[in-house]
Amino acid sequence: MTELSKEHIVNAHRAIGVIDSGVGGLTVVRELSRKLPRESIIYFGDTARMPYGPRSYEEVRGFVLQMIEFLQHQEIKMVVIACNSATAAGLSHYKQACNLPILGVIEPGVRAALAASRSGRIGVIGTVGTISSSEYEKALKKKNGNLHLASKACPLFVLLVENNLVDTPEARTVAHEYLDSLVNEGIDSLILGCTHYPLMSGLIQEVVGPSIKLINSAEEIATEVEEILSANRMVNPLESEEPRYRFFVSGSPGPFEEVGAKLLRRDIRAYQVALV
Amino acid sequence: MTELSKEHIVNAHRAIGVIDSGVGGLTVVRELSRKLPRESIIYFGDTARMPYGPRSYEEVRGFVLQMIEFLQHQEIKMVVIACNSATAAGLSHYKQACNLPILGVIEPGVRAALAASRSGRIGVIGTVGTISSSEYEKALKKKNGNLHLASKACPLFVLLVENNLVDTPEARTVAHEYLDSLVNEGIDSLILGCTHYPLMSGLIQEVVGPSIKLINSAEEIATEVEEILSANRMVNPLESEEPRYRFFVSGSPGPFEEVGAKLLRRDIRAYQVALV
Repeated sequence: MTELSKEHIVNAHRAIGVIDSGVGGLTVVRELSRKLPRESIIYFGDTARMPYGPRSYEEVRGFVLQMIEFLQHQEIKMVVIACNSATAAGLSHYKQACNLPILGVIEPGVRAALAASRSGRIGVIGTVGTISSSEYEKALKKKNGNLHLASKACPLFVLLVENNLVDTPEARTVAHEYLDSLVNEGIDSLILGCTHYPLMSGLIQEVVGPSIKLINSAEEIATEVEEILSANRMVNPLESEEPRYRFFVSGSPGPFEEVGAKLLRRDIRAYQVALV
Repeated sequence: MTELSKEHIVNAHRAIGVIDSGVGGLTVVRELSRKLPRESIIYFGDTARMPYGPRSYEEVRGFVLQMIEFLQHQEIKMVVIACNSATAAGLSHYKQACNLPILGVIEPGVRAALAASRSGRIGVIGTVGTISSSEYEKALKKKNGNLHLASKACPLFVLLVENNLVDTPEARTVAHEYLDSLVNEGIDSLILGCTHYPLMSGLIQEVVGPSIKLINSAEEIATEVEEILSANRMVNPLESEEPRYRFFVSGSPGPFEEVGAKLLRRDIRAYQVALV
């Protein structure tokens, strides 16, 4: 192994920046923490302005660029846009505005779905913004023109998760409303095209039945992050270090800390930052 | 030179944390940037809750501990309490609560005053909290029991600085009101016992006249920070690095950024963080 320079050590020791509209991106943090247990993370959840789904692409891009600016101010080595709506709104814009490696969530989800599906009948659910962007469909069709795709916007799902309402009868009613038509299309896999959805995957799986495989792109994202860090020689060089997780939110920290603690199985501390 | 471990490089590369009730501590940042141009700084100005002068020691201690907690979350290698009121309110409390080296502003000011005074007649001005704590007097008397000391609380000075009112006729009237009695005591040096006061040192010098030497402890603080970093082998090991300055405030960032840009002669970006 070649000797690392001091500059290289310091840069590679930096945290991975993770961005989401709220708590959904924590499902990506969970996978990152499993797959890359030595890597530190700085997270920004734009909880004051979520949900992103119904917003214009232009508005979402503006919000995301503010978060990227903040995370660069905090010193990071790469950016994960752990939000489908934000990715769909303009991954190429973010790449132009930031000189760090940036990874969105759509490509990884597409790869995972293609690996999982046997029949080539794939469903996609996401926010209104993500579904109407057709980014998943375009990416899937590009890889395989013969796929049968069925997609559905599920705007209430993010709100159910962010407001802790997943375990209610009305959530089940809403889930049937959204998902029954997809089941009737004969899909064998369903892309959870929103990082919030793994937080309600129990309900989704019950409603679509056990024969449909749910695709949570978080795992695939963690694999790609690992590849990007290796390719850029940016793996944390401190072998025995406890990872450092820092959380920032634009809204109230309390509800975010609660969801985060449950999801990551550790107490987390989030600070509220005003983005302007 | 011995080889540094990777852990050592990463730790020594961390920023110096600087805390103040508002913009006053920026005078310390300015000296740090002159004396230690390779060191990075993370600053917290509690602008939403300034001034600290009239507050109880207990309340100020609570605020300072919140800021220390935040800066530790940001990863720092030492803490400078760049605020006399905060130092007077309980430096020993902060040392107990934090396992990093902590430096207050009173001891450095005392040392600088003793070095500067020829007659042993020394004046001290500060906030109500600092002056009524008598911390300067105690520290000065401890070093030399024969000093003649005269002190005066100047509660309006912080407000003049924070509200950009230093160049007004009423500021001059107030300055005479506070300082004439000290001049009459025949002092030859005057400790600016508040990190805001260097921001109005032009007016203060005019009012007290050219024969009284103003003691700005910021220079002495920078010297001590340098000594602490050396003693702890915590000097930034990256020789050719541009320092990174990060600013956080509890109030509105705009006015802080304006004062900071003027003082540091560079544009600065401050983020508003809610401390709870």
